[in-house]
Amino acid sequence: MSGAVKGIANWHKVIEGGSDPQALAEILRDDAVFHSPVVHTPQEGKPIVMVYLTAAGATLGNDSFTYLREVVDGDTAVLEFTTEMDGIHINGIDMITFDEEGKIINFKVMVRPLKAMNKVWEMMAAQLKRAENA
Amino acid sequence: MSGAVKGIANWHKVIEGGSDPQALAEILRDDAVFHSPVVHTPQEGKPIVMVYLTAAGATLGNDSFTYLREVVDGDTAVLEFTTEMDGIHINGIDMITFDEEGKIINFKVMVRPLKAMNKVWEMMAAQLKRAENA
Repeated sequence: MSGAVKGIANWHKVIEGGSDPQALAEILRDDAVFHSPVVHTPQEGKPIVMVYLTAAGATLGNDSFTYLREVVDGDTAVLEFTTEMDGIHINGIDMITFDEEGKIINFKVMVRPLKAMNKVWEMMAAQLKRAENA
Repeated sequence: MSGAVKGIANWHKVIEGGSDPQALAEILRDDAVFHSPVVHTPQEGKPIVMVYLTAAGATLGNDSFTYLREVVDGDTAVLEFTTEMDGIHINGIDMITFDEEGKIINFKVMVRPLKAMNKVWEMMAAQLKRAENA
């Protein structure tokens, strides 16, 4: 089983379990990098990647969240998703690179259309603010 | 050779040739659908898809445009690109589905970050306006 195939299985297990921080930590490499749909600058290292993935999960991962298709090639998987926030339809991808053990090296998110981008920006900012004050 | 592999080779040939309309028409199915990074509503049918792909090419396809990686699985290819417009760094994907002959069925574009989305919106609107008035 390739790293990507193992890694995707782990990822689904973690989010189905409600993105428990301990479980999330176990599937991330220490040098993992997160690329936000909103901000250019990469977020580097497991602790900050955990903050972003947890905020993204809390923001996007409501009951309407569904993965539509998986495109898997070599060490990379592109998972297309759809969700809805405040009546705004959101379509996006998680583009994830895995190491040979299936741990996440790189996690990039993109969303469309423009209305979705603006909604994600608003919600992520609020979520990260809450995380900061917690 | 799978439809996707043949289709990607055709796609690269067409854009390297400057996205000539005749060449573009030959690699699109009559029932092709385009999903813009900016607008939710799909654009359906070869004529309108040609207008959007030509506008996208004229907007994004400057000298700094580079494909970074290809993720190919079954009938789908995800091509990640980077480009720059007016000093704004743009990162995005073309998510393309092909039929068995390698013709394009579905073409979806996503971009990040927010600044890039706003720039693409501004430039695509101007480009489509020019196409309308031509």
